Amino acid sequence: MSSPQQFRELCRLEKHTGPTSGVLPGFVQANLLILPSSAAESFEDLCFRNPVACPLLTKTVDTPHRLENHSDFIKDDSFDICRDFPKYNIYRDGRLIEQKTNCIDEWSDGHVGFLIGCSFSFENALTKAGLVPKNVARGSNVSMFVTNKHLDTVGIFHLCPYVVSMRPFKSCDVERVRQVTRAFKKTHGEPIDWGFDGAQRLGIRDLNNPEYGDPIEISEDEIPVFWACGVTPQLAVATVGHLIDGIVMGHTPGHMLILDTTEAASLSSHT
Amino acid sequence: MSSPQQFRELCRLEKHTGPTSGVLPGFVQANLLILPSSAAESFEDLCFRNPVACPLLTKTVDTPHRLENHSDFIKDDSFDICRDFPKYNIYRDGRLIEQKTNCIDEWSDGHVGFLIGCSFSFENALTKAGLVPKNVARGSNVSMFVTNKHLDTVGIFHLCPYVVSMRPFKSCDVERVRQVTRAFKKTHGEPIDWGFDGAQRLGIRDLNNPEYGDPIEISEDEIPVFWACGVTPQLAVATVGHLIDGIVMGHTPGHMLILDTTEAASLSSHT
Repeated sequence: MSSPQQFRELCRLEKHTGPTSGVLPGFVQANLLILPSSAAESFEDLCFRNPVACPLLTKTVDTPHRLENHSDFIKDDSFDICRDFPKYNIYRDGRLIEQKTNCIDEWSDGHVGFLIGCSFSFENALTKAGLVPKNVARGSNVSMFVTNKHLDTVGIFHLCPYVVSMRPFKSCDVERVRQVTRAFKKTHGEPIDWGFDGAQRLGIRDLNNPEYGDPIEISEDEIPVFWACGVTPQLAVATVGHLIDGIVMGHTPGHMLILDTTEAASLSSHT
Repeated sequence: MSSPQQFRELCRLEKHTGPTSGVLPGFVQANLLILPSSAAESFEDLCFRNPVACPLLTKTVDTPHRLENHSDFIKDDSFDICRDFPKYNIYRDGRLIEQKTNCIDEWSDGHVGFLIGCSFSFENALTKAGLVPKNVARGSNVSMFVTNKHLDTVGIFHLCPYVVSMRPFKSCDVERVRQVTRAFKKTHGEPIDWGFDGAQRLGIRDLNNPEYGDPIEISEDEIPVFWACGVTPQLAVATVGHLIDGIVMGHTPGHMLILDTTEAASLSSHT
């Protein structure tokens, strides 16, 4: 498969329904949330107030086929946010009720789809810089923890915790790790904290028992390094799910949308 | 005095050197930080990552006389960020060393001036909505507390705490208070937490002893409501002051810049 457009077509035809890790390296991948209109405005404000944990890339305009600044993200006109991901999770009242290869039947006129940045890009950059994250080296999922730090409140989104991903690094490498990931302003950027004292500040009690992903050993010469994580907006929607009237859709974890945006291009300025 | 332009001229001529509370209601007022180039890029990133606590309005471009999107904020060409505030604080190594009515001599080629939103605007809006903040009714300064919540880290700005302002309101009024202030997206927006449990979450131990401003009594039928506060970026600069090489300038608290922007106009969208 040679292009994001071809890959999205495979998904649309339901010929690719698996994870996207390692698919078309160099292109940006995106997380998905589709919300009913009653929750969509609050969620967009949540992203604007919390850009590190909830890096909003773009959203649909009226239909599942058009994005804000469409051509910055998707070059072909056959785009369909309800079909171009390999797999979808369907939620009601904050609970997962079904997994499907499209969500055409669930989409209604009031729904708004949000594409959110993911940390695959900075993992590639770390690897290229010789700072290979352990989870990448082992082919395991990254360790993720729910913290005691809350997003800045908006509307229904109150008391929603930051989720962080944790990667162990040697203390002497932390400054370089910070520098490499700092450039990824649209996809979580640099770590929000590090060290065992950092774990304590974030309220993480047991570094061996992540709430999401796989556990990973921290060697004697390493410390944990914490980044804001794309699971945060999903947990936010789950946390206040009982307040959301209607069906919520998301991608199945690991099953992302491949954009036409290259990682190099995505490293430009804030706006 | 009839216009922001005339008021700024009075400041420039050093004829007005006092606080700006109550000056030209309806016009937006701004906080100031002027940083040497070595710290300016990190500080701008800090604002982008933490827009609720550090709402960046604009910054100087090359000289003290020109702002990014100048005409959105200032209509006259005689603007001088080093003279148009009534009074300036001069800092070295994070310590206040002098107060002056201008900072022309301190400005050097590498300096960048940042204008940051302030909460006067939403206090006016609350008052108009019949939800008069107690500090406004009494003519006292608002209570401000240092919290255990940290800004999302950038560069030298690590472990910088949120400062919050606290205004007591009746529980039954909190939803309206949230709604009124939510609209002020560029100046802290809605509260980040509320209630005595909220105080505990933020690590505030004694509500009668604010770190900044005046204490204010919370009546039996009231609860504390907490907003992110414009003192946060100043405290951030003080916290890492020993890492900043060069002179830092800020406005003297309460002595703001009056912009040509009206509060009504500032209520428009995120961008």
